[in-house]
Amino acid sequence: MPRPSPGSAVIGQSGGPTAVINQSLAGCVEGLLAGGDEVGAILGARHGVSGIIDDRFIDLRAVPSATLDRIANTPSSGLGSSRDKPDAAYCAKIVDALARKGVRYFFYIGGNDSSDTCRLVSESAGKQGYELRAFHVPKTIDNDLMRNDHCPGFPSAARFVACAVTGDDLDNRALPGIKVDVIMGRHAGFLTAASLLARRRPGDGPHLIYVPEVPFEIDRFIADVDRVYKQEGRCVAVVSEGIHDAAGTAIASKLAQEVEKDAHGNVQLSGSGALGDHLAQRIRDRLGQKLRVRADTFGYLQRSFLGCVSEVDRAEARAAGRRAAEEALAGRHRSGSIALERVRGAPYECGFGIVPLAAVAAQTRKLPVEFVAGHCDIAPSFRDYLEPLVGRLPEIETFR
Amino acid sequence: MPRPSPGSAVIGQSGGPTAVINQSLAGCVEGLLAGGDEVGAILGARHGVSGIIDDRFIDLRAVPSATLDRIANTPSSGLGSSRDKPDAAYCAKIVDALARKGVRYFFYIGGNDSSDTCRLVSESAGKQGYELRAFHVPKTIDNDLMRNDHCPGFPSAARFVACAVTGDDLDNRALPGIKVDVIMGRHAGFLTAASLLARRRPGDGPHLIYVPEVPFEIDRFIADVDRVYKQEGRCVAVVSEGIHDAAGTAIASKLAQEVEKDAHGNVQLSGSGALGDHLAQRIRDRLGQKLRVRADTFGYLQRSFLGCVSEVDRAEARAAGRRAAEEALAGRHRSGSIALERVRGAPYECGFGIVPLAAVAAQTRKLPVEFVAGHCDIAPSFRDYLEPLVGRLPEIETFR
Repeated sequence: MPRPSPGSAVIGQSGGPTAVINQSLAGCVEGLLAGGDEVGAILGARHGVSGIIDDRFIDLRAVPSATLDRIANTPSSGLGSSRDKPDAAYCAKIVDALARKGVRYFFYIGGNDSSDTCRLVSESAGKQGYELRAFHVPKTIDNDLMRNDHCPGFPSAARFVACAVTGDDLDNRALPGIKVDVIMGRHAGFLTAASLLARRRPGDGPHLIYVPEVPFEIDRFIADVDRVYKQEGRCVAVVSEGIHDAAGTAIASKLAQEVEKDAHGNVQLSGSGALGDHLAQRIRDRLGQKLRVRADTFGYLQRSFLGCVSEVDRAEARAAGRRAAEEALAGRHRSGSIALERVRGAPYECGFGIVPLAAVAAQTRKLPVEFVAGHCDIAPSFRDYLEPLVGRLPEIETFR
Repeated sequence: MPRPSPGSAVIGQSGGPTAVINQSLAGCVEGLLAGGDEVGAILGARHGVSGIIDDRFIDLRAVPSATLDRIANTPSSGLGSSRDKPDAAYCAKIVDALARKGVRYFFYIGGNDSSDTCRLVSESAGKQGYELRAFHVPKTIDNDLMRNDHCPGFPSAARFVACAVTGDDLDNRALPGIKVDVIMGRHAGFLTAASLLARRRPGDGPHLIYVPEVPFEIDRFIADVDRVYKQEGRCVAVVSEGIHDAAGTAIASKLAQEVEKDAHGNVQLSGSGALGDHLAQRIRDRLGQKLRVRADTFGYLQRSFLGCVSEVDRAEARAAGRRAAEEALAGRHRSGSIALERVRGAPYECGFGIVPLAAVAAQTRKLPVEFVAGHCDIAPSFRDYLEPLVGRLPEIETFR
């Protein structure tokens, strides 16, 4: 394939932030800098595709490497993010804007919607006969990208959930009652399932885990809570924000006073305590108003909390960004998505492959069935999958 | 004063857990062990005063010091906690139970309600002519104990809040909108004010801080949010769960479907997202349904999250427990409460005094007026007060 160089590069970040998305940005810049003369300007688009259209860029070559490294270690999307959903006309404008700047390398760091945007931009460039290399760098705390063993951002969010539920279970031991924790994850239960790491010994919570892969039935849920409470004298139940009924309607969406949808048609589930409060109230209604029932919704803390990062995640997010730059410069493919492939479980080793954008774009990977144990638990094998990603958790000890 | 020794000792934990309450337990045990022959059995009461009544104890002498140290580093109340509010009859029973076990030293680790329980037990022993030394060890994330510069548990919770709001502000930068974060603290705004540490540079959130020391007016709040949003293009507002109207009625209590009160008459404010959701909805109603408005309620994570501890807090909680044991053995006072006194701000140094139980019991220290800046901000001097307690936070960096 002929080299489009020398050409400039644009990097954008999209979708929900994570604790390590700036590592991927820094890795991508490093990979491009290593490309020497082939690369002209290296530009960061402010707020994803909208910054490209509005001509809002940061000159990333002008950022000292020590500064970039500090940004890499800062949570959330340093360039700003976007939830815009470009259509064909929007994508044609993006390609025009890139062409005006002599951009030949386009990198988009994000989840499945972002990989779809990357695909559309690549296709639009092809139709316009504009030589562009377009690469997607995976990022999502939901861990729901196809063809990936796991996704950068997920291990750190999983670490947050494990630390939060461990502490919450210890809290519930001290002041026994029924506790409902609501965890992010619209369609995939990976992050909710990560609460399993809080269960270290028999009797530890979470006692019940509900993922969106299994239809949620309120009567069965309350019976489960009642059974655990009678047996343990307390109950910690962990619930995905995305739980839905057998018809596929999210429980949370039934509660919203105003159902808010983003440009991708996703109903707003986060940033509200309504689902947790609803479940707590239903438990009280059915099992007794005198019961101590509490609900917490972990919310945006899961993706942006300062100082709770998996070291594996940090390194992999950096490597994924760097790999995207190397692939773009190598020119073996016109476009693609970096995919994390587990080489070995123990000792853990991860490789970085490249898959077609269409294999990832706008699709959702669910929690594999072998990780789902019945309707309210997660299989022990998920622990083997997750532990190397999250890293060692702080030790805890209790009186026996 | 005649020594009641050899006598046994009972230690209990009460009220809401903290990240370092087990440090105080370990410190108290260490202090007692150093007392040599003066101390008989060292017993941990399960679930505070209720364990004393129900004869549920742990033999703390039998716990290896390495195990105790691991427990010290584990969040939440390892012995279990209680929200029981003993009356005179209950206290007489407690003294009877202590006497039956030959207990001459009683330690209660907790907040203002717990110091009141300690006072009542001490008075009851006095009335019954039973020689008992009763000491209260301070603990509360609310930081609201009289006569204390600050309270063990608060610095770690403040660290959690600072890390959470820092991350949340970075998240709000990436995806601009209006964000409301609800923080614990029924009557005192210390923990909400701790969010000030997230504001490192001009333009950083939190842009608005509402503490319960200032009556809350919804119209003024919405005008504040509107002003910041128009100026910054985004707004992070931090609100205490205890905000109340001019008549003193908590905003959250007006929303509760069932107003639940504990034995101390405290209305349940935590464990529900209702206040945050209410404020978000009011903002949408008034400023526009199209605005991106989100609310998170930090909930119990603030007091029990695993792995977010202030080192100063860890050391001081241990020292406070040890000091209580030493005071009890020294016999200068029949009862008392350990009080943390700041010796110096920079370099920071803290001393441990002893004050009468009545000076602390069932009273609430509010955020001093000099720390309150107008109706929606905290004075910079609060940063000088707080920073030595919380310790160094992880560095962050942003593009300019």
